[in-house]
Amino acid sequence: MKVGFIGTGTMGQPMLANLVRKGFEALAYDVVPAALDAAAKLGAKRAGSVREAAAECDLVITMLPSSANVEAVYLGPAGIIESAMAGRLCVDMSTIDPGTSQRVAARLKEQGVRFLDAPVSGGVGGAVAGTLAIMVGGDAADLEEARPALAAMGSNIIHVGAVGAGEVAKLCNNLISGSALVAVAEAFRIGEAFGVDPKILTDVIAKSSGATWVMEHGHPVPGVNPKTASSRDYAPGFMTDLMAKDLGLAVSAAREKRVPVVVAPAAQQLYRMASSHGLGRKDFSSVYQFLKPSSDDAPV
Amino acid sequence: MKVGFIGTGTMGQPMLANLVRKGFEALAYDVVPAALDAAAKLGAKRAGSVREAAAECDLVITMLPSSANVEAVYLGPAGIIESAMAGRLCVDMSTIDPGTSQRVAARLKEQGVRFLDAPVSGGVGGAVAGTLAIMVGGDAADLEEARPALAAMGSNIIHVGAVGAGEVAKLCNNLISGSALVAVAEAFRIGEAFGVDPKILTDVIAKSSGATWVMEHGHPVPGVNPKTASSRDYAPGFMTDLMAKDLGLAVSAAREKRVPVVVAPAAQQLYRMASSHGLGRKDFSSVYQFLKPSSDDAPV
Amino acid sequence: MKVGFIGTGTMGQPMLANLVRKGFEALAYDVVPAALDAAAKLGAKRAGSVREAAAECDLVITMLPSSANVEAVYLGPAGIIESAMAGRLCVDMSTIDPGTSQRVAARLKEQGVRFLDAPVSGGVGGAVAGTLAIMVGGDAADLEEARPALAAMGSNIIHVGAVGAGEVAKLCNNLISGSALVAVAEAFRIGEAFGVDPKILTDVIAKSSGATWVMEHGHPVPGVNPKTASSRDYAPGFMTDLMAKDLGLAVSAAREKRVPVVVAPAAQQLYRMASSHGLGRKDFSSVYQFLKPSSDDAPV
Amino acid sequence: MKVGFIGTGTMGQPMLANLVRKGFEALAYDVVPAALDAAAKLGAKRAGSVREAAAECDLVITMLPSSANVEAVYLGPAGIIESAMAGRLCVDMSTIDPGTSQRVAARLKEQGVRFLDAPVSGGVGGAVAGTLAIMVGGDAADLEEARPALAAMGSNIIHVGAVGAGEVAKLCNNLISGSALVAVAEAFRIGEAFGVDPKILTDVIAKSSGATWVMEHGHPVPGVNPKTASSRDYAPGFMTDLMAKDLGLAVSAAREKRVPVVVAPAAQQLYRMASSHGLGRKDFSSVYQFLKPSSDDAPV
Repeated sequence: MKVGFIGTGTMGQPMLANLVRKGFEALAYDVVPAALDAAAKLGAKRAGSVREAAAECDLVITMLPSSANVEAVYLGPAGIIESAMAGRLCVDMSTIDPGTSQRVAARLKEQGVRFLDAPVSGGVGGAVAGTLAIMVGGDAADLEEARPALAAMGSNIIHVGAVGAGEVAKLCNNLISGSALVAVAEAFRIGEAFGVDPKILTDVIAKSSGATWVMEHGHPVPGVNPKTASSRDYAPGFMTDLMAKDLGLAVSAAREKRVPVVVAPAAQQLYRMASSHGLGRKDFSSVYQFLKPSSDDAPV
Repeated sequence: MKVGFIGTGTMGQPMLANLVRKGFEALAYDVVPAALDAAAKLGAKRAGSVREAAAECDLVITMLPSSANVEAVYLGPAGIIESAMAGRLCVDMSTIDPGTSQRVAARLKEQGVRFLDAPVSGGVGGAVAGTLAIMVGGDAADLEEARPALAAMGSNIIHVGAVGAGEVAKLCNNLISGSALVAVAEAFRIGEAFGVDPKILTDVIAKSSGATWVMEHGHPVPGVNPKTASSRDYAPGFMTDLMAKDLGLAVSAAREKRVPVVVAPAAQQLYRMASSHGLGRKDFSSVYQFLKPSSDDAPV
Repeated sequence: MKVGFIGTGTMGQPMLANLVRKGFEALAYDVVPAALDAAAKLGAKRAGSVREAAAECDLVITMLPSSANVEAVYLGPAGIIESAMAGRLCVDMSTIDPGTSQRVAARLKEQGVRFLDAPVSGGVGGAVAGTLAIMVGGDAADLEEARPALAAMGSNIIHVGAVGAGEVAKLCNNLISGSALVAVAEAFRIGEAFGVDPKILTDVIAKSSGATWVMEHGHPVPGVNPKTASSRDYAPGFMTDLMAKDLGLAVSAAREKRVPVVVAPAAQQLYRMASSHGLGRKDFSSVYQFLKPSSDDAPV
Repeated sequence: MKVGFIGTGTMGQPMLANLVRKGFEALAYDVVPAALDAAAKLGAKRAGSVREAAAECDLVITMLPSSANVEAVYLGPAGIIESAMAGRLCVDMSTIDPGTSQRVAARLKEQGVRFLDAPVSGGVGGAVAGTLAIMVGGDAADLEEARPALAAMGSNIIHVGAVGAGEVAKLCNNLISGSALVAVAEAFRIGEAFGVDPKILTDVIAKSSGATWVMEHGHPVPGVNPKTASSRDYAPGFMTDLMAKDLGLAVSAAREKRVPVVVAPAAQQLYRMASSHGLGRKDFSSVYQFLKPSSDDAPV
């Protein structure tokens, strides 16, 4: 199977490497020459343009940084819509807003081109190991057709629903984990201010209604759990910048559908501020650091 | 052991009933005559005042609605501070802010009176069954002295730390569960707006970083889990009004210690609004109802 | 001067009417047949498509409901970009996000087509009276070329800066007025809860640092100022739905530029909720109604 | 007239100095020895305790940092309630929450002691110049009795309503100005990110619905108005720490009365964070600095 792979950046490279390793013939493209060079070193053939990568393959995979990039690569001038033949299957593995996925899919469908959204979780580590979780939206038969390629990159492939549903699942999950982590950080800052031992507080909450995956596996207080990012100076893990992006997409998706949300935007803006103040490339649990109390002599 | 029990309201009554049932001699007081009548029916002796209830007993238990009530009953005119003899042990089981617990304890200590804060979780159901979780702040030896009485009312007694730590643990737990529930509600409103099946979305998130106790045991979408409040028209469970109160206390505690918090106040004000709009006595997961999207023809 | 006018909805119709009245020859198009019929009754010629309206005129004016509409009408299949000849001047008077204005302008420029963003304020009343304020972004010479047509629709034409600046000015203004109005509503709900006379409170604040246009001209408490929407059952004025939209655009613009914002999203989501709960077509000052306190017996 | 003056800190000293200068005989007390020394240098007699200051005077004035201090000085052990004779008039000029003012007044009234709340605005500059604005809550006749002393310290004395109304007026005003300033800062950060000239943007908004006192007199962008704190490196003016305190009191007052508020807590927590990150003693308009965008290569 010949795969056109567009977007060979930080995440795309190890994903492409696994495809090549598993025997897929790959034709790669990226607007950044260095990224394309890296793809070539991994054993992919170089395409000179999106058009070329999309035209001469059985399956198109895209892994791009933003909704605007996806829209441009698929629908823009010299985009996939102009080069992919009717019947072609495209899989967008970028994390973007589900509305964009649906608009792209609808426009492609007019040309007979098929589309799956298939964002991943697991980070660079999971991409290298080939153990990504892949949440897929689109037609079940299309997913079966793409499955061999997806299985080369990830170990947990979940069919969530129609086009857009993969993105929805990823963003909704991160909305909850990102918001819950802020709540955990706030709780432990309060506990600390009142002199409560964070390990005891963790034990109490772990057995009560506040139990959350993020407290168990990503505790924001250094030293409570030696395996967490916080215990290694917040080395990611999952970067603050990416959490700010994903929560931003979730809030934007809510806006598009007129859904009121209050906790997600508050959390999103906190990650944005933490990024502005130097924590963007730290693990997202570093918002705990950001939420430090002001000095004892400040009026209350 | 003779217990002076002050505050025989909705929660206090079943707690007092268990004390009497286990053989404690109880002297009860409440400013509301009907609440005091109910206590008498349970087998407690009537006290004519706080002073009387606190003076003639071995252990004072208070179960009051607010920080202001606790401050008044302990430190106000004709309060416990004026009647309890040196050495007396007082256990406040109210949910109030930890700063108030600490101030009350400090003032009592000047008179040689000992104090534990021991808020509960488990609701009226747990109070009736005698299975409350009791989070205790204060001296370990004092807790041992109070333990027989506490064990009559609850099945899980946790010593969290110094005075105030019981309240901190309860409020921090509820800060997380209350905030996380809002995040879950927002996520499922977005999912619904994009046509994603809530059961599938639940399965995906349950195995990912968004897993939380509140989604597993208190799912806000009716029908996903037949055991949750949402599946019985949001009959509580834990009322919106109480979540608004507890998050308010948590935010107030943060303010007192100059800790910045952003998700907790956003969640708190949402519960407050839901209460203003008729959901105060529903389960707190009914904020899902409150977060309904506006109509399709509203501009975006 | 022959004007192609695309988007003859609620606002577009009275604007078009003024153009016709002032002697402009107009060729109108709208996807909604009823809207196009209305335009024809006003004296405009019917165009059968965007392409036709844009091809046969000296100046293209667009007045559309959303960023997605603007993007589709200018850049989509059979859009203006495919029909407008090089040198053509387009004026988009829609309220959309400035990033979209800039992207559209950049794409048009590649084809030699010129673009101004020129959103308006003043509402349907101002559109009918021809007294709209028009905030313009783009080239000064292009504005001079469009000025006669703009002057037919508005009385206050402001050149704010380069393309996108008109949208920025409108959204930033509404970010402030929409957020400030919520603050005013919150302040007067607190004042009312403590029994303070709203007229006296208004007088005090009007002379102090809290003085704002929205309190002076759009006071949210009924009866304080007989001229405000609140004093006529919140008949708009400026609808809650439109404020929710504009604040949403402002927050989205902030996200695109990585600017952290906290008050704007909180206000935006409140207008969204007020809309969900029936106040969407009331004046935006009706959020005061929405912020009603919960009942006296709710725990605090 | 002999005045007992309790609380001779940063604000209290210049206020006391004006009283002495205008011929009032003053008996001062402060728990901080250095503050009491300073009062003595200004010509006041030293009192050895609250009790002494309150017992031997015609009028008691208090100027204290927090609600807890006011509660302790009036109602605590050896507090004013134990020493002031029936009929004595007390004026609390502290900025505290109105609920505390009302509780203190109610308890004093039981002893026949009269109480006014009379918070000030104008800062240390206004205190030194004797030009403070004084917002008064309480009985009109009591205000007349206190007026000569108040007139020695301030030039604008406003009777707002019953006890607590002075505090309500101050907090509500600052709720609006503090929230509006954040909105202004957000708007100008967005404008800057899109390359719009802040002076032109200011001119546009000043004539539109976003016009606010804080933009006109406290513009957060350095250089737009040479007279503002922002143009002198955010030297206060009104400190971030004090705005965090006042908004905290406003939010707390809302909580006590079950009023939902959303913009005020978002603004409050932003000032708190700005304080935590080193801006506490800068002018509150320095939140503009705090709201800087994250770097251009952060994902969106």
